[in-house]
Amino acid sequence: MVSDKTHILYLLCRPTEPIFIPKGRYRVTFDVDHKDFLAPQHQDVRKKVMERIESEVEQVSVPLKKIEWPDLSEVMEVGRHQPFSIFLPSHRRAAERLLDIFMGAASYEDFLSCAAYARDRVNPTLFVYTLSVAVIHRSDTKGIDLPPLTNIFPDKFIDGDQLARAKEIADVLAVTEGPRRFPVLIPRDYTSNGLDDEHRLAYFREDIGVNLHHWHWHLIYPFAGKMEIVNKDRRGELFYYMHQQIIARYNCERFCNHLGRVVRLLELRKEISEGYFPKLYCSIASKTWASRSANSKISDVRREEMGFVFDIEDLERWKTRIVEAIHWKRVIDKDGSSVALTENEGIDILGNLIEASPLLSKNYDIYGDLHNFGHVTISLCHDPDGRYKEGMGVMGETSTAMRDPVFYRWHAYIDYIFQLHKDTLKPYTLEELKYEGIHVEEIRVQTDAPVRENILKTFMETTTTDLQGGLDFIGYTPLKAQTIRLQHVPFSYTIKVGNNLNKICKGTMRIFLSPKFDEKGEKMLFLDQKRLFIELDKFSVTLTNDPLGNKISRQSRDSNVTRKLGRNFSLLECSLAWPCSENEEDAFCGCGWPQNMLIPKGTPEGSPYQLFVMVSDAEIDLVQPRDRPWDRSSYCGVRDSKYPDSRAMGYPFDRPPSSEVKYLEDFVRLAPNMAVQDVTIIFEDGPPKSHKLDD
Amino acid sequence: MVSDKTHILYLLCRPTEPIFIPKGRYRVTFDVDHKDFLAPQHQDVRKKVMERIESEVEQVSVPLKKIEWPDLSEVMEVGRHQPFSIFLPSHRRAAERLLDIFMGAASYEDFLSCAAYARDRVNPTLFVYTLSVAVIHRSDTKGIDLPPLTNIFPDKFIDGDQLARAKEIADVLAVTEGPRRFPVLIPRDYTSNGLDDEHRLAYFREDIGVNLHHWHWHLIYPFAGKMEIVNKDRRGELFYYMHQQIIARYNCERFCNHLGRVVRLLELRKEISEGYFPKLYCSIASKTWASRSANSKISDVRREEMGFVFDIEDLERWKTRIVEAIHWKRVIDKDGSSVALTENEGIDILGNLIEASPLLSKNYDIYGDLHNFGHVTISLCHDPDGRYKEGMGVMGETSTAMRDPVFYRWHAYIDYIFQLHKDTLKPYTLEELKYEGIHVEEIRVQTDAPVRENILKTFMETTTTDLQGGLDFIGYTPLKAQTIRLQHVPFSYTIKVGNNLNKICKGTMRIFLSPKFDEKGEKMLFLDQKRLFIELDKFSVTLTNDPLGNKISRQSRDSNVTRKLGRNFSLLECSLAWPCSENEEDAFCGCGWPQNMLIPKGTPEGSPYQLFVMVSDAEIDLVQPRDRPWDRSSYCGVRDSKYPDSRAMGYPFDRPPSSEVKYLEDFVRLAPNMAVQDVTIIFEDGPPKSHKLDD
Repeated sequence: MVSDKTHILYLLCRPTEPIFIPKGRYRVTFDVDHKDFLAPQHQDVRKKVMERIESEVEQVSVPLKKIEWPDLSEVMEVGRHQPFSIFLPSHRRAAERLLDIFMGAASYEDFLSCAAYARDRVNPTLFVYTLSVAVIHRSDTKGIDLPPLTNIFPDKFIDGDQLARAKEIADVLAVTEGPRRFPVLIPRDYTSNGLDDEHRLAYFREDIGVNLHHWHWHLIYPFAGKMEIVNKDRRGELFYYMHQQIIARYNCERFCNHLGRVVRLLELRKEISEGYFPKLYCSIASKTWASRSANSKISDVRREEMGFVFDIEDLERWKTRIVEAIHWKRVIDKDGSSVALTENEGIDILGNLIEASPLLSKNYDIYGDLHNFGHVTISLCHDPDGRYKEGMGVMGETSTAMRDPVFYRWHAYIDYIFQLHKDTLKPYTLEELKYEGIHVEEIRVQTDAPVRENILKTFMETTTTDLQGGLDFIGYTPLKAQTIRLQHVPFSYTIKVGNNLNKICKGTMRIFLSPKFDEKGEKMLFLDQKRLFIELDKFSVTLTNDPLGNKISRQSRDSNVTRKLGRNFSLLECSLAWPCSENEEDAFCGCGWPQNMLIPKGTPEGSPYQLFVMVSDAEIDLVQPRDRPWDRSSYCGVRDSKYPDSRAMGYPFDRPPSSEVKYLEDFVRLAPNMAVQDVTIIFEDGPPKSHKLDD
Repeated sequence: MVSDKTHILYLLCRPTEPIFIPKGRYRVTFDVDHKDFLAPQHQDVRKKVMERIESEVEQVSVPLKKIEWPDLSEVMEVGRHQPFSIFLPSHRRAAERLLDIFMGAASYEDFLSCAAYARDRVNPTLFVYTLSVAVIHRSDTKGIDLPPLTNIFPDKFIDGDQLARAKEIADVLAVTEGPRRFPVLIPRDYTSNGLDDEHRLAYFREDIGVNLHHWHWHLIYPFAGKMEIVNKDRRGELFYYMHQQIIARYNCERFCNHLGRVVRLLELRKEISEGYFPKLYCSIASKTWASRSANSKISDVRREEMGFVFDIEDLERWKTRIVEAIHWKRVIDKDGSSVALTENEGIDILGNLIEASPLLSKNYDIYGDLHNFGHVTISLCHDPDGRYKEGMGVMGETSTAMRDPVFYRWHAYIDYIFQLHKDTLKPYTLEELKYEGIHVEEIRVQTDAPVRENILKTFMETTTTDLQGGLDFIGYTPLKAQTIRLQHVPFSYTIKVGNNLNKICKGTMRIFLSPKFDEKGEKMLFLDQKRLFIELDKFSVTLTNDPLGNKISRQSRDSNVTRKLGRNFSLLECSLAWPCSENEEDAFCGCGWPQNMLIPKGTPEGSPYQLFVMVSDAEIDLVQPRDRPWDRSSYCGVRDSKYPDSRAMGYPFDRPPSSEVKYLEDFVRLAPNMAVQDVTIIFEDGPPKSHKLDD
């Protein structure tokens, strides 16, 4: 349904082009004739520019309601050409202020006018971030899908070199009709080569979907703003779990690439051996994102102009206090009272404390802002006092941070602190693990390709991304980038579950995957392996009273952790309303792990993995209302609703095992509603295949 | 005189725009209809692009002679989008090959066709470099002035951020007539701030004229190519002297900024404390020039793709051998024979050996390529083995190297080696210093400003640089950058010289300037001070037989070391032939130190300097033919001719003093044809003044 309300999305189109230049395929123009509406730098040039605009194309005119223009002075303290970072307190406050304005608008029309007024006045990245958060959270724009950030700021995802080449081509050769010279090919290995061990993970770190996921997760879970936006059910726990899963996934990929688990950035004053040269051009700042040479060190930060003055000692102090709190199983809140870190709520408290959310932290002044400040400190290590007038590295922004190897070292450190807490918990009792009367009898995995059972296949494929919405000042010729990414052959699970209960009952199917052997080639201890289990799917099942087994089938593409592939309804709507091509699979942004990254890469010779399946009791699991779909909820929660699974996130692998459990098999043996199946992931080496949409 | 031959200069205009797009104000087009003329990437798009070109503007069509197209395969081994460095042996060889083709063309018409054919096929920087060298050295293009490199590649001189902003403005706002929104202001302090001590010298290092000088010097004195181009009179010595003077000038500026002399980069394996973040965008590579973080180290280099594989040990070995040669006062040539490092020719041999010129080095295999390889090694310290696929830093190119503080540390090291040789020479005898019968009686310096005698005044001023020729793919709207630079109030010398010879005779007036006190605030020893003397002027004088004194007047703007200011004849020609504005003072490039940098900055409270004047005997000094003007010869030599001064470059300060000389005054006392005058340089602080052409 093309709603008029999609017009607000055109404010995201080509964010540095003035608002009065028609936008998109439909040449949408905003009626900007109100007095004082235009930003000062545009007031005297608009008329002349408009004379130049060809009038032959269809134009959609969007009226703007006359309102009292909001006071943007605080928001404008972040300069137009500065890279914006939500991790920086001063930037965060500016975004909060703008978000308040957007959320406070009395109607959609007021919201539209406010946003249109702010657009050419405030920092473009801040604008896109804040408008996105507002569109997601306002009730009157519910259901309007956002265009993917690749479409707004392709420079955050695509090799700057190739992007410049693309613009040049568009400039000179715009007259050659059609996309004959396109797409622009983005080489697979543009940031490093095989001399750098970390390079082997570039396909993961620089995957467009992975980075879109991280950006979008942080749009849904802002850590700053008003209570009604920030204070979502179990958000602190989800911060822990989503990032824990990223580290688990990263470590699986490392094993596939003959690398050991990522090393925590534990000693903050030591050299960081991993260098990173992102080669991304930051168009709003007209410079490339800062690089980090190998063996750089972080330093105390004195960036007064960013409002960021801060010592490594602060990070160390906060960590000490947080670990202290974990070991005493309590934090001290602002009033000096003890708040227990309980079995169920403790992790949520810690998530908000460590991330940190200034609003939700039990005591921001004492426990500080460990995770966020770490991001900024690392992103400024090349110029901690601003003497070289350099901007941040990619670690400073959610849409780019996951490209950098140090992201994983930092989050392995953050995760280690969370695990210290999990280590204080008691093992799950049999009661908590069992689903009496239910037993998993058989697990089989089958791919669409003609290979044996329980073999998964991965390969590299090419895919295209539309760049048009973000190529400011360039005609609307179709301009696409072709990138190369990991993909797998779709597969299905067939799981036989016996039900001895003599009644139909409901269960929750939990499917996890982990490597069988560690980096030494040895069979993993359960204590290690439980941290490497990645969630593949979670869904509800109805079990008839058949003791010989219910045969449950499930497609990999329906996974609850991933963003869906394919040409769905909102995608068609997109093709009408947004200047993107209609068969772009990522034409809409949304939370969720990218489908192409569902399983690790494996190896050409085959990597031994273990698929774990558990059916738990839906009576215990499900949270009211019980009939909601699980869609993407594991990593992203459910909009306007409680997290649908009552169990601890990561259950049953989030706690230490009981003493008799040494290996996974010992654990599975505890309860018949759990089972394990060995699978092999084979990576099919060779030139990238061209992508076909799979529905 | 607008010669047809200036048409070849249009090949330098907008080097990445295809040749068939009309160039410049006169819309010059080249007749490219020959079969196979166009580069493959342009063959099928030309027609369509041409349809788009507005036909209302006047077009000058330049015919191209049909020739046998040259074989460019070796030249094309340097990729189109790679930063080109003459310091790299593989790039040097490609440039040599192209230069051979250009120099070998039988006529101007053949040369033009060759160049037009090569233009869109070879690396654009390599093309501009090689075509420039060829235009300077071919007899049929003698006298054609080159447009300044700022006009061809403004990105090598102007903050990338501002340049991008300028292009953006040109893009959207091209329709606003006239230069109302221009010039683009380039902030004074865009690469660093006062927290960085080295920042105080940014006005020197990043001065456009200083960098143009360095670029142009290396065009005139290529170290590679055919003998007739490379083997110029005393080129090795001039390499030493021009760079020695840069270091002396830099040290004077450092004193003015309360910094000590630049520290030689003696210990090659130590951290380089000076970081540099050039913030220049390299348009042909579509990326910014690489930065160097503070405290980086150089490493052994393994850049196979550049043909540059090489160890620090090699540099150390070469230095050891060179110092060995200096101390034994001989080098060993390719045949194993000793070649003495004599008083007069030794320095020239060493210059070619150390730079090194593979052609002129007495033994390239043994003494290596110390200076050039040092440049490359430093420029690659952030990515010595190419694992991060990064290009060079600014040290890799002659037009950008002087921006980086490490340039001076490296050249202080190179200069120190030359000084080791100079230290082995005997002091000048009285015979060599004296001009019997001639005595300097009085020196006075007067500025145009109303201040006391012997006071020089400096200030900051704004100046504009035309960017148009280099802004590929943008309409020919006037687009200028306004930069801020050091300037001084023009001044004149009045020197009274007595002649007791009872005849009219000729002399050579040599004027040098040096600080009186060192960085400790102590009066300098002659041994130190002699290395800090900067040459201000050198000119011939005729001395009548007046024992009471000839009064000799001389204007600072006529200095023999500087490039002339102002609107001269060739500048008017430029305004006809090249798309630049006619009152650009740097509208033509040429060798010579920039006039605005003639004297050091001084300090607001006044820096005590000493002006040294010497009149030497023209009978000894002048080299046949004796009637040549001295114009710019001190740092640049004379085209197609011998260096006009027979004395050692830097005379009389290039040798150790005799034992009785402790201070400058002791030295001056040796011979009455030398004299010294204290002067004070006052820097007038305040907002930059706007520049007026001074004639």
